[in-house]
Amino acid sequence: MPAKIQPRTLKGFRDYPPAKMIPREWIIETARRVYRSYGFSPIDTPALEYLEILTGKGSAETDKQLYRFEDHGGRQVGMRFDLTVPLARFVAQHIQELGTPFKRYQIANVWRGENTQRGRYREFMQCDFDTIGTTSLSADIEMVLVINDLLSTLEVGEFTIHINHRGVLNGLLEKLDLADKATDVLRTLDKLTKIGEEKVRRELTETVGATDAQAEQLLDLSSLEGSNEKMLDEAEKLIAGNEVGELGIAGLRELIASVSATLPPQATDRIRFEPSICRGLDYYTGIVLETTLNDLPEIGSVASGGRYDNLANLYTNQKLPGVGASLGLDRLLAALEELGRLEQVQTTAEVFIPFFAAERRNDYLQLAAQLRAAGIGVEFFPDAKKLGKQLQYANRRGFRIALILGGDEFAAGECQVKDLATGDSQTVSLAEDAKAVIAEIRRVLGN
Amino acid sequence: MPAKIQPRTLKGFRDYPPAKMIPREWIIETARRVYRSYGFSPIDTPALEYLEILTGKGSAETDKQLYRFEDHGGRQVGMRFDLTVPLARFVAQHIQELGTPFKRYQIANVWRGENTQRGRYREFMQCDFDTIGTTSLSADIEMVLVINDLLSTLEVGEFTIHINHRGVLNGLLEKLDLADKATDVLRTLDKLTKIGEEKVRRELTETVGATDAQAEQLLDLSSLEGSNEKMLDEAEKLIAGNEVGELGIAGLRELIASVSATLPPQATDRIRFEPSICRGLDYYTGIVLETTLNDLPEIGSVASGGRYDNLANLYTNQKLPGVGASLGLDRLLAALEELGRLEQVQTTAEVFIPFFAAERRNDYLQLAAQLRAAGIGVEFFPDAKKLGKQLQYANRRGFRIALILGGDEFAAGECQVKDLATGDSQTVSLAEDAKAVIAEIRRVLGN
Repeated sequence: MPAKIQPRTLKGFRDYPPAKMIPREWIIETARRVYRSYGFSPIDTPALEYLEILTGKGSAETDKQLYRFEDHGGRQVGMRFDLTVPLARFVAQHIQELGTPFKRYQIANVWRGENTQRGRYREFMQCDFDTIGTTSLSADIEMVLVINDLLSTLEVGEFTIHINHRGVLNGLLEKLDLADKATDVLRTLDKLTKIGEEKVRRELTETVGATDAQAEQLLDLSSLEGSNEKMLDEAEKLIAGNEVGELGIAGLRELIASVSATLPPQATDRIRFEPSICRGLDYYTGIVLETTLNDLPEIGSVASGGRYDNLANLYTNQKLPGVGASLGLDRLLAALEELGRLEQVQTTAEVFIPFFAAERRNDYLQLAAQLRAAGIGVEFFPDAKKLGKQLQYANRRGFRIALILGGDEFAAGECQVKDLATGDSQTVSLAEDAKAVIAEIRRVLGN
Repeated sequence: MPAKIQPRTLKGFRDYPPAKMIPREWIIETARRVYRSYGFSPIDTPALEYLEILTGKGSAETDKQLYRFEDHGGRQVGMRFDLTVPLARFVAQHIQELGTPFKRYQIANVWRGENTQRGRYREFMQCDFDTIGTTSLSADIEMVLVINDLLSTLEVGEFTIHINHRGVLNGLLEKLDLADKATDVLRTLDKLTKIGEEKVRRELTETVGATDAQAEQLLDLSSLEGSNEKMLDEAEKLIAGNEVGELGIAGLRELIASVSATLPPQATDRIRFEPSICRGLDYYTGIVLETTLNDLPEIGSVASGGRYDNLANLYTNQKLPGVGASLGLDRLLAALEELGRLEQVQTTAEVFIPFFAAERRNDYLQLAAQLRAAGIGVEFFPDAKKLGKQLQYANRRGFRIALILGGDEFAAGECQVKDLATGDSQTVSLAEDAKAVIAEIRRVLGN
């Protein structure tokens, strides 16, 4: 016998057994359903792209992390590291046939050869949605509504959608004559919640090269507090006289008003103007947002996005503005687990049928088929083992109901419907395509 | 302005715009729902594996097609070329915690650097399901039932599930003293439908080295005709005295009887004993099957699989028998397209709301939210363009219904529900959370 190959996964990569994959599929399904309810349509793009497509847009950091190689035809190729670059390439290539506005979602894996010591994974899933080809505020509003619907459905508790407009920060930078240092300033301000005001002030003056007065004004804006209205009023004062900034404030006011008018009253508190948010990426130009869970703010944003002016400028002369966001699947799963809101289930079917009377296989199969025709998921155990062993299997996997049928039950035309949570059991008739069995199962499942 | 990078995909790779992706998601969703209704649970494994894992099991051909490279840590890695090898690695690694029977499905992309001239793609999706850790006939039966449920749901017209048992062919090979030439014989017989009886006979005698009499008997078995019962009787005569062959026939008889007892009467004709099927792969040891569409047999098998003795022998000493099959997603899509059974739709929402009265944005948004709360998908056009332009957009994308609301309608508290297929339009009240609008939409949609 030859030596065995050690079964193992690469560092930074994960297997998903059913207990991990079932909640994952549930979140993905929820995202799909919500995206679709707004008319976003699915697209997909290849995992592999020409290297020049991927390195064109990426930062030095993503370039370094790229999985790249030469393919069988001698082409330089890479594995996609996000869904934004493939989207830009896709719309540059297809937008003529597709037309605008183009609303798409894409839920797919991306790969980055990251340093795994920071708890990062090298393969992870992104769930993006974007509206391309319009500058309408409606598209910005929808982005907020989609995130609200999604997180409400997922039952992660209360959450806060932190909203800013790049015009507000850019306006202040213009006013302070710091526009040429914008990238450094924004990168530093982005650390505010992480490293605190004093360290940010020091970095602004010592590293970025702002004066004390400039740093003071930037921090004044970033640390505003109070109601949305009060903060917007104060921000307006800080950027008074700068057009870009004033347009940003006006956009935020209109967005918040529309979202508040559309959401149910108890949900309007979820939207917060947060002037320190700028989303590191260079390409956002309008509204930007991040979303935190009120019970677990420390895990970071679970849904982030914003508006951009020009998605595909590397690949086409056509200017394509848009707005979009991405759901943080892994963070949401971690949050649901930490909040104890994930059921520990390893089965996709509700009902378990032990194989009891070995000569009755076809009768079991027929009963299972009747239940499936009524929309009930059924697993029929394959081997006629001891009943106790089979029920142990069912309990361990999290089935809700077992149907107990031995030769006697079949002869009497009856079946025991056993609630595996309570242990209660009802005997019902198998007649009329198992009508009574189906009714009793629905009663136990509560639907 | 720097030169643009040409937006293009690699040869053998495809973009999926909404018109292609929507039917794709529908098939994937159907597969998931059917797999789940039998208690199969989802798993996922990484796209990248250690190269030794992938090359261990593959044939010379798959080895050649493998996308392989050295990663950032100097590891030799490869992209998975199927889902069977990762499954074997996965169960070898995790089966102790998972326990048996282990029923899993996995729906994921695989990559092969194939010669694209044969119309093959280098990235394609596999939809596999397997039951591992049992030799029970129930698992074989379920494989057939799952395929039947799947194809019935997809409405691809009538189909035929061709079933064989490796014991039948192996038994005859043993009886004919050709067991040492089994691989070559099976590979040659597999070409029967493609190249015809005469060419197969010649290849058997001239290339494989069988005698005329041996070739005759092999062809006698492979070209049996008539009812399942008649063919099984005749096959039994051909392999009489060989135990492996007799067990194979008995297994087929029991499988066909059980499947026929479970399926609705009109579906039992779908199962056909087909003694020439052997499924090229070396690792099948029991039941094997292929599925063809009666209206389009030429596209080949749309669902194939079989039983194997020892899934993970390269990675563990634990013997893991199982049975499973794979859905041919791309072939099914091609078939549905050819049969004209794919709607040409580019939207995921049924209802379209043109943006008409520019000052009424929040009213439109509120109406859309009311419909979504009732489970109706709604797209609200972002820009207040001319109504005709907006309806053109809606028609082109395949929306079913448009809700026409201008300032007058809002003032009157009314809305026109327009059936975009017929052009008919009903005016209904917006009162009571748009109750009448929802009812009229449901009436037009026929649900």
